[in-house]
Amino acid sequence: MNSAADLARPHDQIRPVEIECGYLESNPASVLYKSGKTIVLCTASVETNVPPWMEGRGKGWVTAEYNMLPGSTSPRKRRDRSGKVDGRTTEIQRLIGRSLRAIVDLHALGERSITVDCDVLQADGGTRTASITGGYIALSLAVSQLASNPELDPAVDPAAVLRDSVAAISVGVIGEDVVLDLDYKLDSAADVDMNVIMTGSGRFIELQGTGEEATFDDAQLAELLRLGKMGIADLTQLQAAQLRSS
Amino acid sequence: MNSAADLARPHDQIRPVEIECGYLESNPASVLYKSGKTIVLCTASVETNVPPWMEGRGKGWVTAEYNMLPGSTSPRKRRDRSGKVDGRTTEIQRLIGRSLRAIVDLHALGERSITVDCDVLQADGGTRTASITGGYIALSLAVSQLASNPELDPAVDPAAVLRDSVAAISVGVIGEDVVLDLDYKLDSAADVDMNVIMTGSGRFIELQGTGEEATFDDAQLAELLRLGKMGIADLTQLQAAQLRSS
Amino acid sequence: MNSAADLARPHDQIRPVEIECGYLESNPASVLYKSGKTIVLCTASVETNVPPWMEGRGKGWVTAEYNMLPGSTSPRKRRDRSGKVDGRTTEIQRLIGRSLRAIVDLHALGERSITVDCDVLQADGGTRTASITGGYIALSLAVSQLASNPELDPAVDPAAVLRDSVAAISVGVIGEDVVLDLDYKLDSAADVDMNVIMTGSGRFIELQGTGEEATFDDAQLAELLRLGKMGIADLTQLQAAQLRSS
Amino acid sequence: MNSAADLARPHDQIRPVEIECGYLESNPASVLYKSGKTIVLCTASVETNVPPWMEGRGKGWVTAEYNMLPGSTSPRKRRDRSGKVDGRTTEIQRLIGRSLRAIVDLHALGERSITVDCDVLQADGGTRTASITGGYIALSLAVSQLASNPELDPAVDPAAVLRDSVAAISVGVIGEDVVLDLDYKLDSAADVDMNVIMTGSGRFIELQGTGEEATFDDAQLAELLRLGKMGIADLTQLQAAQLRSS
Amino acid sequence: MNSAADLARPHDQIRPVEIECGYLESNPASVLYKSGKTIVLCTASVETNVPPWMEGRGKGWVTAEYNMLPGSTSPRKRRDRSGKVDGRTTEIQRLIGRSLRAIVDLHALGERSITVDCDVLQADGGTRTASITGGYIALSLAVSQLASNPELDPAVDPAAVLRDSVAAISVGVIGEDVVLDLDYKLDSAADVDMNVIMTGSGRFIELQGTGEEATFDDAQLAELLRLGKMGIADLTQLQAAQLRSS
Amino acid sequence: MNSAADLARPHDQIRPVEIECGYLESNPASVLYKSGKTIVLCTASVETNVPPWMEGRGKGWVTAEYNMLPGSTSPRKRRDRSGKVDGRTTEIQRLIGRSLRAIVDLHALGERSITVDCDVLQADGGTRTASITGGYIALSLAVSQLASNPELDPAVDPAAVLRDSVAAISVGVIGEDVVLDLDYKLDSAADVDMNVIMTGSGRFIELQGTGEEATFDDAQLAELLRLGKMGIADLTQLQAAQLRSS
Repeated sequence: MNSAADLARPHDQIRPVEIECGYLESNPASVLYKSGKTIVLCTASVETNVPPWMEGRGKGWVTAEYNMLPGSTSPRKRRDRSGKVDGRTTEIQRLIGRSLRAIVDLHALGERSITVDCDVLQADGGTRTASITGGYIALSLAVSQLASNPELDPAVDPAAVLRDSVAAISVGVIGEDVVLDLDYKLDSAADVDMNVIMTGSGRFIELQGTGEEATFDDAQLAELLRLGKMGIADLTQLQAAQLRSS
Repeated sequence: MNSAADLARPHDQIRPVEIECGYLESNPASVLYKSGKTIVLCTASVETNVPPWMEGRGKGWVTAEYNMLPGSTSPRKRRDRSGKVDGRTTEIQRLIGRSLRAIVDLHALGERSITVDCDVLQADGGTRTASITGGYIALSLAVSQLASNPELDPAVDPAAVLRDSVAAISVGVIGEDVVLDLDYKLDSAADVDMNVIMTGSGRFIELQGTGEEATFDDAQLAELLRLGKMGIADLTQLQAAQLRSS
Repeated sequence: MNSAADLARPHDQIRPVEIECGYLESNPASVLYKSGKTIVLCTASVETNVPPWMEGRGKGWVTAEYNMLPGSTSPRKRRDRSGKVDGRTTEIQRLIGRSLRAIVDLHALGERSITVDCDVLQADGGTRTASITGGYIALSLAVSQLASNPELDPAVDPAAVLRDSVAAISVGVIGEDVVLDLDYKLDSAADVDMNVIMTGSGRFIELQGTGEEATFDDAQLAELLRLGKMGIADLTQLQAAQLRSS
Repeated sequence: MNSAADLARPHDQIRPVEIECGYLESNPASVLYKSGKTIVLCTASVETNVPPWMEGRGKGWVTAEYNMLPGSTSPRKRRDRSGKVDGRTTEIQRLIGRSLRAIVDLHALGERSITVDCDVLQADGGTRTASITGGYIALSLAVSQLASNPELDPAVDPAAVLRDSVAAISVGVIGEDVVLDLDYKLDSAADVDMNVIMTGSGRFIELQGTGEEATFDDAQLAELLRLGKMGIADLTQLQAAQLRSS
Repeated sequence: MNSAADLARPHDQIRPVEIECGYLESNPASVLYKSGKTIVLCTASVETNVPPWMEGRGKGWVTAEYNMLPGSTSPRKRRDRSGKVDGRTTEIQRLIGRSLRAIVDLHALGERSITVDCDVLQADGGTRTASITGGYIALSLAVSQLASNPELDPAVDPAAVLRDSVAAISVGVIGEDVVLDLDYKLDSAADVDMNVIMTGSGRFIELQGTGEEATFDDAQLAELLRLGKMGIADLTQLQAAQLRSS
Repeated sequence: MNSAADLARPHDQIRPVEIECGYLESNPASVLYKSGKTIVLCTASVETNVPPWMEGRGKGWVTAEYNMLPGSTSPRKRRDRSGKVDGRTTEIQRLIGRSLRAIVDLHALGERSITVDCDVLQADGGTRTASITGGYIALSLAVSQLASNPELDPAVDPAAVLRDSVAAISVGVIGEDVVLDLDYKLDSAADVDMNVIMTGSGRFIELQGTGEEATFDDAQLAELLRLGKMGIADLTQLQAAQLRSS
């Protein structure tokens, strides 16, 4: 694919999304998030302490781990068991963690840690943005559970902990076209790839635009940002609808 | 629980099993296997070569990897990223691999490798036996796919490759009782824990009976084996029914 | 060897055993254990604390480490220095530890740790069972030393700590025959290999029967268990005689 | 510092830059690059082969490694000797490598690898952007050396290999202000931090804007980009002047 | 080179030495030490605690780390990032640490740790002896800074902490000749290589004479020691002059 | 012990030595070497290839590995299983290897590797020198075996391969005294510790004199060397006698 001409959907429209909250019976804060063929299982786990370097500050912590299951790709992806998490994995899980923390009031959370695990069951492009978008829902469910725990004193106020929502989407330049929400095939064809991470209220959390062996100009940047904002708006609506009904 | 008195099901009956073949669109040899609350995603991946130490013998290889996702347990299980796969994981994946190889004719497979990945999404006891029982189905689906590939010369004959089926179940001694198919609560209460791995035709592949800080006598051994065989017979039927309909 | 016909000793008889207690001057709880050509140096070391996860429970801990020296095999075995203890080693040392703990009353031991090191100087099959049988003697010597220490308050009662003795032996199926105590050559020829670990009083601690690329039926299982029990009885006598004279 | 009011230089001006080419006698492609108090030693090393996964494609490879010396910070920074390069280091060296490759024609380079090492002798903020800006000069010197080697057939054409130049600078939001080229103190105070990496001809290679526990809007983004472009223009001039005189 | 005949300088004379104290603005205890083409950056960092195994003894600790930068050699030296510091590096940094501790009164230092980092920017032989000779200067500067800190109670007395100075030099046997201060070319040609480490007052701290695939006799030993002492005397003068003027 | 006054043997006499060749039935080149209470098992293993970096040069390779068994010390020594061989172990095994290679003609050995494993069963000081002295005997036995192999063409000539013998001994300064052959208690009391490694014909291979927190002068050096040579002469005789009778 050297242009977006063959794209089955309009170039400014995201892939179909399916969200299943409470997928694991043992953890209500578990979300099976599907974006097209990409499937990510996001689970949020709460611990009643924080990492040693944060103790005694009256603040909580939110972090994320990302992993692709071996069967999520074809050919099979080798497991990260060498003791060296590969560079791509490290970058992605740091990005997910930063993005989630940007909308959390860590003081309102209290001295608790929430780990959001994003395990990719099937990978067809956009696994990092799906992890952020689905991870926010898992995080939100975990905070709601904390809020409904009558034993916590002081009680956790979910509206105070989560100051906003967060969603993420990719956009890319393919030949002359700018396309929203790159699946694996589009991503492979893209000259420039940008991840847009924004709050539900429309502010930027993170922008990562990369031209591997390519570059882009001001006009392309403007169009990338325009499409990215459209995608974020759609995802924000889907997240809100899902959380209202859980 | 100090006896099997509170058990919701008869002590000689297995938990309800659900099997979903082709769970991942990108890999038909993928099986979502549920035994009670235990959920394992088994995927079989074929490579057209064998490990270096097996090259040139005209034989194939079957191996397995086992992993529990962090969100599969509560509290959350830390990922194995230190470069040291823990002893329990190593033992389990070696057991799964041996059990599957026991019913495979590696010469009939040809110089190909099949890796069966068993990723535990939710853990409630019996994850290693579920991995074997579900892993056999994924392996069988992968062999069928090879057989239906018209380009392979010589063609792969699934009946020659898979000489039998394999299933596994746990049995345990709890106080005075012997109980079939231990979930997490039963397993924690058991004085003796035995894994029975058998072929569909009723022969033993592996027996592992362990009394951690406890021991057992001949009569208990006989009853453990009797119940184990009953469970294996049930699982063998379920596997066959599922594979006929896929 | 495809049958047990060429076996130099009767198929139901163990190899000659030699036991040297106090082999190292610096540690009386050291045992040089020889079974045929297999030589294992077993040393038991006592520490006056327990692992962090066991502190404050008033119980002790017994664990084991297993290692083959590079010169113990031909060709030379590479040292485990990669930071990854291989799967086989991990399995064996976990087995030795479980087997020893099965006959120890950890409360009677008090908050102490005993590590039993089993270093194989020469390997000719049966190193894991020799490690258990010899390791029990080293453990027993270490407990006796604790008991004779007048400074410990309360005093350690060896009869309370060691509720029984433990020994281990292998049995196997070679062609049509069932054979006791497999040396390297027999083990390589065996279709089925079973390790039988029992107390001196005749109860099972652990049974591990494995058919790598083979299976076994009820009749074979019965014969494997019959021979295994005979071997255990012989080893139990040898252990007792040795400990009486130390 | 909660605003840019105390800034010693205008908020839209970069720190003073010093560049020393050929710093190491043994490697002419070595550059000591100073930006304010930040000092990075950049060396480019050429090898006459490419990584295994690139062999036989007639293309070269450019990669980078980044490291902070223990004495570069106060308190002392521990060395990365655990076998796990930390996530920040991994991200930075991947970024440097991508940025350099964006302006290299790997086919024109031929089957050669160039590794650009960026070792930070003194760190005062902006080490990654200094590594890219200084790393480009080292890369350029290495390519010139290849070009002046009369034994290479075909000869290497530096104008073909280096399609453009590359420079990088940081910009940030501090309270209400947008500031160019953040030193350590400014970086610690910034709510939003953006790295701008551009070609000498004014095209974007990479944009990384991050709000850790903060967000930014369209107007701030526009100002960040405006200042970033000004800084890049200045650095591009300095690079060119330096390379003309070497 | 099979003899010392082509040597540009007299065989009993050291290479030209340049010493730049306070090379890094952020750490006054930083020394750029050049011996011929060998360049080592030595920085001494003080921490106000000691390693856990030394706590509560009222003594301090001095240790060293040694590293060669990738660009310090041609061809480029790979970084030690595998988690295994190579044997040569380990030996060298242990030697530097021991040599510095030999002249330090650890009680007079108090419960503080000083780490001397020796990072080789350019390597042309003699990097370990340059690290010791330059490392002593960095250590001395760090102790002076401690002494000038009016807040420390009790005050640190530099004359009590540093009982003597330390310097190091190599000597070697090349064919029939004994040569002082081996650069890379001489070192490669040497049959016997000896490192002499002495105090400023003329006592031995460490002697390491090694004949790789060669041996030496009493007469050669005497000449090696004679030249070594001459070199040490020269270096001791240079160190003292430099420290007086800093 | 602050002087050598309490020493049970004369200060210029080595500890009693016992040497058992062919200790392991499976490897004739195995030596149990005892020096006082120190016991080292030395085994030499021959491989018919050399490390990759030595291939095709028509030369062989000799290397050594050193390890202390956990039970060799009291308290128990932890195993090196972290993937990081500790610095002391690395230094010692490099020293053993260099010392053995100094008397081997690697060309006469042909493209073969000999690994000498030195496993310390009981440690009472002097384990590295015992490893060299015993390791030479194991090496010599391995070379003799090669020489008696009629299938090798060209035949291996042991007199050509082993140009000399090698032995090692420690000497130390304790208070005012210089003492030969330090056991653990003497070694702990020593201010200066020197290892002397010499050929049977009286030439130096390696000298390592170290004053940890102490120094030594010319007169002490002379006495250390005098005693060291006496010890080497005794060990050389014992080695020769043992090898004649094997």
